[in-house]
Amino acid sequence: MKRKAAIGIFDSGIGGLTVAREIAAQLPHETLVYLGDTARLPYGSKSAETIIKYAVRNVSFLAESSLKAIVVACNTVSSVALPAIREVVDVPVLGVIDPGARTAVGASPSGVIGVIGQPGTIKSGRYESAILRLNPSARIYSRATPLLVPLAEEGWVGTEVARLVLLHYVEPLADKGIDTLVLGCTHYPLFKADLARLFREELKAAISLVDSAECLAKDLKAMLQEEDLAATEGVPSHRFFATDSTETFVRVGASFWGQDFPTVLHVDL
Amino acid sequence: MKRKAAIGIFDSGIGGLTVAREIAAQLPHETLVYLGDTARLPYGSKSAETIIKYAVRNVSFLAESSLKAIVVACNTVSSVALPAIREVVDVPVLGVIDPGARTAVGASPSGVIGVIGQPGTIKSGRYESAILRLNPSARIYSRATPLLVPLAEEGWVGTEVARLVLLHYVEPLADKGIDTLVLGCTHYPLFKADLARLFREELKAAISLVDSAECLAKDLKAMLQEEDLAATEGVPSHRFFATDSTETFVRVGASFWGQDFPTVLHVDL
Repeated sequence: MKRKAAIGIFDSGIGGLTVAREIAAQLPHETLVYLGDTARLPYGSKSAETIIKYAVRNVSFLAESSLKAIVVACNTVSSVALPAIREVVDVPVLGVIDPGARTAVGASPSGVIGVIGQPGTIKSGRYESAILRLNPSARIYSRATPLLVPLAEEGWVGTEVARLVLLHYVEPLADKGIDTLVLGCTHYPLFKADLARLFREELKAAISLVDSAECLAKDLKAMLQEEDLAATEGVPSHRFFATDSTETFVRVGASFWGQDFPTVLHVDL
Repeated sequence: MKRKAAIGIFDSGIGGLTVAREIAAQLPHETLVYLGDTARLPYGSKSAETIIKYAVRNVSFLAESSLKAIVVACNTVSSVALPAIREVVDVPVLGVIDPGARTAVGASPSGVIGVIGQPGTIKSGRYESAILRLNPSARIYSRATPLLVPLAEEGWVGTEVARLVLLHYVEPLADKGIDTLVLGCTHYPLFKADLARLFREELKAAISLVDSAECLAKDLKAMLQEEDLAATEGVPSHRFFATDSTETFVRVGASFWGQDFPTVLHVDL
């Protein structure tokens, strides 16, 4: 029964938990199988070839469970590895780029859009091409903002250091007149409050922040309902796996998922 | 001829280049074979098991060349994987912990010593035990300082952000009355000037900074001379390998090695 099958989700680490949490909120009866490839993180600074190799390995592990869909909850993997992933599985594969691009285009009256992400995502140019497909006259300014991941994972959200780093990264984008900023990495939603304060109080700019998790969860829900695959009852029992020690994953994971963060099992890939 | 054999050096990435550079300076006729396991970096946040697995794989690759010694130019690997590495090779294996501990004990009249490093190094407690073996009455204060690696690699040395992060990390150690601080990660020597300024101008503390690369290179030289293995003539042709794309390695590597940074070859491990 495909309807009882799980939704497979993977990320290089814990960032994808912001996506998993949003899916669990919008689809409360679906069972999630989550894999964080923490032994090999971060993907953001690695080459496309290496990322594809890891992504295929992760998906093959997830596919050992009975799945109805696979969510690539990582911008870097979504930018470079979706075609390779679709070759090895026969269920729908959803990435975070297209939903983020669609939300950004809808949120931007001026069509001047900023994108921040890890180096691999920015280098791929996938947000640019996805946005331009939807609005060919959009003007897009992108910037790699690599420090935001360690700052989020090490608990520096809301500090003076975070303010200075964010200012350094986004001021040049604000100067270009963007009205919308895509948070092109699953870690970045943790800085939503810092960014909102920075734009409002220091840069005096009215800028919409786009978090693709929300839109992706909506897409997934619509697709499952359309194909009559949605689970409509029961309490799901999620399964979480990490490729490195689960201790850090559980500690840091709580700040991404919430206090009821469940048991995480180790898997050697 | 063992005297013509190379010195194998490996690190999770580019940090070990600070060690390789020091070895090249003190032993200018030795050929170096350097491997940066950039596809799997950083090691600092990974578990001991995972680090040992990667370390053994790296050493097996280096051992395909004819070697006279292996240098583990990474504090995290040195803290957890030396016994496992010594099981798979039959040449001397030198880590960075013992030289750093010896220098620190020699530099500290009070015996109150601070150690900063990546989480894996600090968690291992290896600096503490190495220092206490040499000075059983030493008092050691250690602290994991994970943000320093991305700050060094992303070019934030000498900035206000670096100052604030360093202050946050080392002020509690200065408050304990340390007179010596071990830079327990091969990236940290890049912050020597920032740290010196911080201790002198803001914290008003006279603190010796210990960089283990110097002492390790001295140990290596003494060992090679003692065993009559030192190369005494000729221009060496170093070989550098990285497991991820070599582009970033070359770009960032220049700030660790210097402007004459040579070609880097990719190897898939």
